[in-house]
Amino acid sequence: MKVAGFDIGGANTDLAVIDFEGEKIESIEVDFAYLPMWSNNDDLSGVLVELIEKICPVSEIDAVGISMTAELVDAYDTKKEGVLDVVKKCEETFDCPTAYVGVEGMLSRDEIEKTPLKAAAANWIATAQIATLISDNCIFIDTGSTTTDIIPIKDGVECAIGKSDFDRSATGELVYTGTLRTNLASFLDKVQLNGNEYRVASELFAQTADVYTVLDLINPEDYVCDTFDGEGKSKTECAKRIARVVCADLEMLSMDDIVEMSRFIHQKQIEQIADGLKQVVDAQNLDLIVTTGLGKDILDRPAAELLGLEVKSMGDILTDEECVVAPAVGTAVMMNKYLI
Amino acid sequence: MKVAGFDIGGANTDLAVIDFEGEKIESIEVDFAYLPMWSNNDDLSGVLVELIEKICPVSEIDAVGISMTAELVDAYDTKKEGVLDVVKKCEETFDCPTAYVGVEGMLSRDEIEKTPLKAAAANWIATAQIATLISDNCIFIDTGSTTTDIIPIKDGVECAIGKSDFDRSATGELVYTGTLRTNLASFLDKVQLNGNEYRVASELFAQTADVYTVLDLINPEDYVCDTFDGEGKSKTECAKRIARVVCADLEMLSMDDIVEMSRFIHQKQIEQIADGLKQVVDAQNLDLIVTTGLGKDILDRPAAELLGLEVKSMGDILTDEECVVAPAVGTAVMMNKYLI
Repeated sequence: MKVAGFDIGGANTDLAVIDFEGEKIESIEVDFAYLPMWSNNDDLSGVLVELIEKICPVSEIDAVGISMTAELVDAYDTKKEGVLDVVKKCEETFDCPTAYVGVEGMLSRDEIEKTPLKAAAANWIATAQIATLISDNCIFIDTGSTTTDIIPIKDGVECAIGKSDFDRSATGELVYTGTLRTNLASFLDKVQLNGNEYRVASELFAQTADVYTVLDLINPEDYVCDTFDGEGKSKTECAKRIARVVCADLEMLSMDDIVEMSRFIHQKQIEQIADGLKQVVDAQNLDLIVTTGLGKDILDRPAAELLGLEVKSMGDILTDEECVVAPAVGTAVMMNKYLI
Repeated sequence: MKVAGFDIGGANTDLAVIDFEGEKIESIEVDFAYLPMWSNNDDLSGVLVELIEKICPVSEIDAVGISMTAELVDAYDTKKEGVLDVVKKCEETFDCPTAYVGVEGMLSRDEIEKTPLKAAAANWIATAQIATLISDNCIFIDTGSTTTDIIPIKDGVECAIGKSDFDRSATGELVYTGTLRTNLASFLDKVQLNGNEYRVASELFAQTADVYTVLDLINPEDYVCDTFDGEGKSKTECAKRIARVVCADLEMLSMDDIVEMSRFIHQKQIEQIADGLKQVVDAQNLDLIVTTGLGKDILDRPAAELLGLEVKSMGDILTDEECVVAPAVGTAVMMNKYLI
């Protein structure tokens, strides 16, 4: 049985195609595409098909599972409208059985159309499925391009206190910060440099992908989102954007200054994630952390270590590429269980 | 003698046309236009002429003074490139005498082309000229659509420690926060609501103009910038954008909730400005505050009162409309002094 799992985010759509023998995974293939749903959601159907076709003919797929967070983008007036639009587009695209990840398990088309909010931003439920393969009692942390999900698991079942993104932003289970697309101004008040503290400009000048490019912590091919100024992704171009965050340019700041700033910014983002993680740890009394996503080694491991917690990586059972699209892998796993 | 003073910012271009009899102001007329210099700087020349023509024929203008902050926008690789581009466009536009506000006084075209950085973000020098009309010893604070300038004046002369925007962001003399265009995510980590603390989404979801519209602190005609989602500027549309900042929508939050959030956000921005103001107060040992700009009553007065300081308003000598474009008024005053 060949199952496709999609995770349709605001900026990225991820795919995992898994061959199952019963519940056993025979093979996994993954891919992703940058699809800004706030401006290009009419391309969704085409992108879903293209992604599958890069792996195998769509006709070979026996079932499609879908999780989403794209309903939050500002092209949609309400989450309900967003969920229903994504469902409509998926149903028009596929002939095989489809179902959707909801906070209480998979939902059929009929069910999701009755209770669309159950599927809003439920992709973390899918990811939690995989974490249980490492430990039945852990806190699972997944930092992607844009957000960080922190999911407590007890006795093999996710036990998050918040069920919506809104609730989870209060419980620490959602920290809206990521490895690529996060505006530096959103988590920095001031930047330390050469013994001074510089206030940051509240514009869309530079993002975390610029910082991790300068620090060599991500590869050029990881920088999949657009730059804020429409310019290139070289180290010099990233440095120029970072300088602008403190109202400076590369005639005023050296590359050494930009690296010093970048290290400070990196540490601040680690602390931001640690703040959410600590809140979940305190609420749940769990101390094993399982990391995944593009930020698992750059951000999540240092955040857990800052709190003195034990850390394991989903990289122990999945490849790095699979970790980056863990919610899509989990969605395929849930879809397979739903059908058998 | 009829002098035009322009303040060319990243988002707004302001104009004051002043009739002088010697140094004495006979009359002031002001206007402004929204001109996003990051995308539309080729329109600058046309906008400058249009603004003047709404007040009087360009041929009646005897001299034009120009101050700027637009050189920081990301259409320019460096501030130098930005300053020189603005100068080139101004020189092509006007036949009468022109000069530019620099940190050490007015600069001719030749001087600014040799030392362009002296004119980068020097518009606060122009504003300080007017503050001296109220007191020779004060701290002058001007919150516009995007930024807040905090300028110490001793014995009638501005005595800011920082001379560039970069330096001033460290001294507290520039706080990059404003009444309209400021992304809420830039100064909020968490929002208090109904006894919970919600982390904010690091996207471009809502700006301060949305908050002050909901709170009735600005008039509809003050909301001159674009909305982040391209939708309208009604209270409901503003509320929808604010809800999105905590990953919610207007089906999850009531209008009362949005007003409670907005009050909290307003207070946080007051504290952000007070933080910069306190740094300047401590460094200069001055305790009279003179406020101006669109945020003078909404943000600057409460920030000064939070610190227990005496407050006067430039509104005592200028109209509200003139206060909003105070740097343009100051630029015309400096240009007149430069010529006589």
